[in-house]
Amino acid sequence: MQYHLNGFKPGNLQIPDAARIPAALPPITDLPTEVDVLIVGCGPAGLTMARQMAEFADIKTSIVDLKPGPMLFGQADGISCRTQEILEAFNCSEILAKETYQLYKNAFWEPDTKQPQNIRRKHKVDDARLGLSEFVHGVVNQSRLHDLLLEGMENSVTHLVPHYNRRLLTLDTEHSLYNDLSAYPITASFERTDAEQPGKVETMRARFVIGCDGGKSVVRKQLSISMEGDSANKSWGVMDILAVTDFPDIRIKSFIQSRDNGAVMIVPREGGYLVRLYVELDLLEADQRACNLDLGVDDIIAKAKRIMTPYTLDVKEVAWWSIYEVGQRVAERFDDTPAGNPQELTPRAFIAGDAGHTHSPKGGWGLNTSLPDTFNLGWKIAAVLQGKAHSRLLSTYGPERRKVAQMLIAADRKMSALVATRPSAKVAESGTKTNTADIEKFIARQNGFIAGTSIEYNPSFICTGFEHQHLATGFKIGQRFHSAKAARLADGCPVHLGHLNKADGRWRIFIFGDEECPTDTASAANQLVEFLAHSKSSPIRRYTPDGADIDAVIDVCAVFQQDDLSLQDLGPLLWPAKGIYALRDYEKVFYPLAHEDIYQLRGIDRSNGCMVIVRPDQHIANILPLAASDELGEFFAGFMLA
Amino acid sequence: MQYHLNGFKPGNLQIPDAARIPAALPPITDLPTEVDVLIVGCGPAGLTMARQMAEFADIKTSIVDLKPGPMLFGQADGISCRTQEILEAFNCSEILAKETYQLYKNAFWEPDTKQPQNIRRKHKVDDARLGLSEFVHGVVNQSRLHDLLLEGMENSVTHLVPHYNRRLLTLDTEHSLYNDLSAYPITASFERTDAEQPGKVETMRARFVIGCDGGKSVVRKQLSISMEGDSANKSWGVMDILAVTDFPDIRIKSFIQSRDNGAVMIVPREGGYLVRLYVELDLLEADQRACNLDLGVDDIIAKAKRIMTPYTLDVKEVAWWSIYEVGQRVAERFDDTPAGNPQELTPRAFIAGDAGHTHSPKGGWGLNTSLPDTFNLGWKIAAVLQGKAHSRLLSTYGPERRKVAQMLIAADRKMSALVATRPSAKVAESGTKTNTADIEKFIARQNGFIAGTSIEYNPSFICTGFEHQHLATGFKIGQRFHSAKAARLADGCPVHLGHLNKADGRWRIFIFGDEECPTDTASAANQLVEFLAHSKSSPIRRYTPDGADIDAVIDVCAVFQQDDLSLQDLGPLLWPAKGIYALRDYEKVFYPLAHEDIYQLRGIDRSNGCMVIVRPDQHIANILPLAASDELGEFFAGFMLA
Ligand SMILES: Cc1cc2nc3c(=O)[nH]c(=O)nc-3n(C[C@H](O)[C@H](O)[C@H](O)COP(=O)(O)OP(=O)(O)OC[C@H]3O[C@@H](n4cnc5c(N)ncnc54)[C@H](O)[C@@H]3O)c2cc1C
Ligand SMILES: Cc1cc2nc3c(=O)[nH]c(=O)nc-3n(C[C@H](O)[C@H](O)[C@H](O)COP(=O)(O)OP(=O)(O)OC[C@H]3O[C@@H](n4cnc5c(N)ncnc54)[C@H](O)[C@@H]3O)c2cc1C
Repeated sequence: MQYHLNGFKPGNLQIPDAARIPAALPPITDLPTEVDVLIVGCGPAGLTMARQMAEFADIKTSIVDLKPGPMLFGQADGISCRTQEILEAFNCSEILAKETYQLYKNAFWEPDTKQPQNIRRKHKVDDARLGLSEFVHGVVNQSRLHDLLLEGMENSVTHLVPHYNRRLLTLDTEHSLYNDLSAYPITASFERTDAEQPGKVETMRARFVIGCDGGKSVVRKQLSISMEGDSANKSWGVMDILAVTDFPDIRIKSFIQSRDNGAVMIVPREGGYLVRLYVELDLLEADQRACNLDLGVDDIIAKAKRIMTPYTLDVKEVAWWSIYEVGQRVAERFDDTPAGNPQELTPRAFIAGDAGHTHSPKGGWGLNTSLPDTFNLGWKIAAVLQGKAHSRLLSTYGPERRKVAQMLIAADRKMSALVATRPSAKVAESGTKTNTADIEKFIARQNGFIAGTSIEYNPSFICTGFEHQHLATGFKIGQRFHSAKAARLADGCPVHLGHLNKADGRWRIFIFGDEECPTDTASAANQLVEFLAHSKSSPIRRYTPDGADIDAVIDVCAVFQQDDLSLQDLGPLLWPAKGIYALRDYEKVFYPLAHEDIYQLRGIDRSNGCMVIVRPDQHIANILPLAASDELGEFFAGFMLA
Repeated sequence: MQYHLNGFKPGNLQIPDAARIPAALPPITDLPTEVDVLIVGCGPAGLTMARQMAEFADIKTSIVDLKPGPMLFGQADGISCRTQEILEAFNCSEILAKETYQLYKNAFWEPDTKQPQNIRRKHKVDDARLGLSEFVHGVVNQSRLHDLLLEGMENSVTHLVPHYNRRLLTLDTEHSLYNDLSAYPITASFERTDAEQPGKVETMRARFVIGCDGGKSVVRKQLSISMEGDSANKSWGVMDILAVTDFPDIRIKSFIQSRDNGAVMIVPREGGYLVRLYVELDLLEADQRACNLDLGVDDIIAKAKRIMTPYTLDVKEVAWWSIYEVGQRVAERFDDTPAGNPQELTPRAFIAGDAGHTHSPKGGWGLNTSLPDTFNLGWKIAAVLQGKAHSRLLSTYGPERRKVAQMLIAADRKMSALVATRPSAKVAESGTKTNTADIEKFIARQNGFIAGTSIEYNPSFICTGFEHQHLATGFKIGQRFHSAKAARLADGCPVHLGHLNKADGRWRIFIFGDEECPTDTASAANQLVEFLAHSKSSPIRRYTPDGADIDAVIDVCAVFQQDDLSLQDLGPLLWPAKGIYALRDYEKVFYPLAHEDIYQLRGIDRSNGCMVIVRPDQHIANILPLAASDELGEFFAGFMLA
């Protein structure tokens, strides 16, 4: 579908341009005075946190933002493969896949050797990320991702909607209550930002607070968490435009480096007409700030035109623009426990997203790192609040996501230098850098990081079993479950196994059978299923509440190499009776597809099989041999509460 | 996703079971007194008509139904490949694809030769329709299809919503006004069916009326159109149930024939728990009606249990059930002109869907034939109302769709006999028919008909060029454009060309280039593009209104075998400037994918190339050599108005 031919129009892209009008601003309703979870900020991090909490009827969540309503314009636009996988966990990937402009090529432009005042295409290559995920990297207005998360919240069992027009002012924390999970140790104060009752102050008590309030996070400041890293001395302009140009690669992601005027990065956008340009502006003096330079969009356009010589660029409409400085900073800690946490305080306040890491937007990593931050945190807080898991689970959030933030700023430091023709004063003195080959090499090398698919959490009690990695070399412990298809035994339907990992707080055990027939009672698979179903030390028996469905806490699926099995013969764990009617669930057992064999694709040991244990955030927690039922029990006992 | 575990809940399946509640009944608003198009009935036929009309801001449409609001339960559930292709034309196929239960297998069950009172699986085969379309045959509650069409109407530029609680009583037709297109020759009267103003009569004058009011169509009766065909003497029960069973193929489409008790057909349904059973009931006496037999759902369940012996069937909830008689009838004509139409009256009233053809529901053909009926009619009425086409276009509807209806009732007659163990009194006397092999053969043979993909309209002035069929053997003239992918020149993105054929009333010319480079001015492709862009006899120049975008009436796309072309060199028809800003459209030119070559897949003559002309309903109207610009002009002159 094409959009925005006759001007950019924000809103639901499922509605054609001519009929699309932005939704009315939501009404202002009273803040609750006491909540389990307070989320500050309706960006990707906050909304992902809220989207996840919304699934739990027994958790009271409130999400606030100082803005008057949902975002309409600008900011991030790149939607990585991993972000789309997470949206699939929220059951809404297909709309985003449909609306995003998918990137299949990269082009590299340098000064023409014959006429170096002109640019010339060096070459065009396939996007390096193809094949890393079942999803393709795409670009769309960040607001559409917000919309889908908001819609999911509203359609959930809690019908959660944000409280807009609320600016967080202060957080009062009462550390003596921190280890009492039933307490509300944090008091937040807000002021109204609307015209009706401007400045009116409200307060709310919370059991947990998540600061998703962006780069200038008030939560971070209130928790006295400092930022570490470089300050900026380089500015860029970014603009979403409707333009007429004879530049041939305007619909391809292009890196342009001119000899005399700087660099441009082109990101073609959803709908076939809109395009984003990142334009290199000048170096800043040590004490200069871009916002004080009094530059406007006309300056950005003029600069872009010079860089793109000999091509024309006739800008017809600017949908959104901004000027930013490049700098890379990461928070010293991601929660409110002091370094080392000598008193073993349970963290009760967290920061996520841009509140914890700021950097340049060029890699398209801001949104795509912020959203997984809270996708990591959400299920942990839910499990602790619901009494399903020990609060020590919460201490894994900081290390896991701060590692990613550090990789992010390292990558961004590198990338920012590569795409600029004058990355620093030092280079500027010695002339211009116009080498796009190093950009290309960097992109190829950082492939999995850019796609978000190679993010790997450090070993911990929820990331273990490395000694068994060889049993399934394609499911990397600590990384996300890399989906592959298998056929469902009950009906032959090919299913992406990764799409079973929905964001419902459940753990999953994927059993990959060995060569023995699992109906043979002597087989390892059969004995494992027996253990899970009946043993007193089975984590399923231990952690599933009485009366709940057998898969309510831990969901067991199996892939068997034999394709002539009958569900009936596999026992009630794999063909469970569920719900008020004890209806059978037919969607737990699979066999490999002939032409896309999951054993081969994911390096699963055919003779030994294995168990792959997947966290509620789709990351692989553990790999175990089929016979390792004791270890399985011990693994869950490390953090689950019976 | 799974739905309905704890009981069937109608409504939007994007909302999880626990949060889903049916939408409130829509408010009652006044009927307009004068409309361009009056549609009677909110079934698949009526809604498809309305969905299409809703796209046109200059056409005033009203759709009415006697029911108080949108459908919630029951009726059809099979969504054929072709129906999904049509939904893609309405830009909403992905939600249906996501919600439908996709069928990959068929199973056949007969009396066990050793214990013939029991049934036994004969065999299980792959569904024969795989590969006929880029969509897979699926099943979902008919109401979800209604919802998507209603949503599209409401989101369109006309924001069309139905008028519920209106029963059509009479149609007054004024034949003397029929050839005056500006006149309103039909007056309809309605009575209110709600409790507020029951029986209140309203009238409306219309330029065109479409009777989509089902098997007992009042429109049909008011137009004195009679039904031809068999009456029924056989009854079946159908029920959507949540049940526990040990029947192994409950999640596979299964045909069961028992020796003593009749036949069952199983259709597994969306969400993994729901299942539909068609259950053969007894033969009716000549003057018996099923509705007078006083049978209830308990009788259907009891019968199903007997047929499925030795398996158990424990029905926990019946979501919907019905008993119907088998009979096949088709209307003698589909519009209100008399046979032969000696006065050359312009048809002003039409019937579509079940109003024109009734038959058994077992083939899943009712919905899947009703919806394409009005998909055929909608664009024709729009073109005539907008003054774009001659009213003779309207006379093609009846012959094109009545042919399909006749194939439909022939197929249904055959299928109904095959799936029953006692299809008629004759067979009943001589014992039972328990041969599923003939069902399997029939399904395999009727493959394309069942998928809806082989429907082929008769030769006419909008279905012609058979002498050039050899230029593209895989695009059958009269059949729908069978989509295949090609890479977009501007960005390398693989695109399903068929999905360009949106339901916007536009014609499309697909140019498939020959071996010559299209930038070579001597090449046939270049000359064709020149002709289309500049010649006075170019249909694009003739029929596109001044000031409209160049592709507003006829959209030209091209596939060239050369993949190193530049859009800039191909001329402004294939890289057109559009809209208020004269932005360039980069989405008109393609090249074949290396591994899915459209030339090979669709049998396109590589050395000669061709033009494939596609109607607004995605059916292929004509195939012409690249040099046949005169014929192209003549083709459009046959019905278009300058
Ligand atoms: C101007 C701008 C331009 C950007 N351009 C790009 C780009 O070109 N490409 C790219 O990839 N990324 C870009 N980004 C980055 C990207 O948008 C962020 O990385 C991403 O949105 C971070 O998500 P977040 O949820 O952590 O925070 P944010 O999206 O920043 O959301 C924070 C939210 O918190 C709210 N908030 C802040 N303070 C308070 C308070 N005290 N009380 C209540 N609410 C508060 C804000 O209103 C905001 O809605 C841009 C960001 C900004 C701000
Ligand atoms: C009870 C029943 C069970 C069915 N079961 C199956 C099945 O199991 N499998 C299958 O494939 N197909 C089944 N079908 C058939 C399938 O539903 C139809 O083929 C399909 O819905 C036809 O679409 P339509 O739009 O032509 O008519 P319909 O869907 O019948 O819609 C007609 C509409 O017109 C309205 N209407 C009727 N008269 C008037 C009037 N005078 N004024 C105003 N409005 C009026 C009705 O309320 C209705 O909404 C069943 C149909 C019925 C009625």
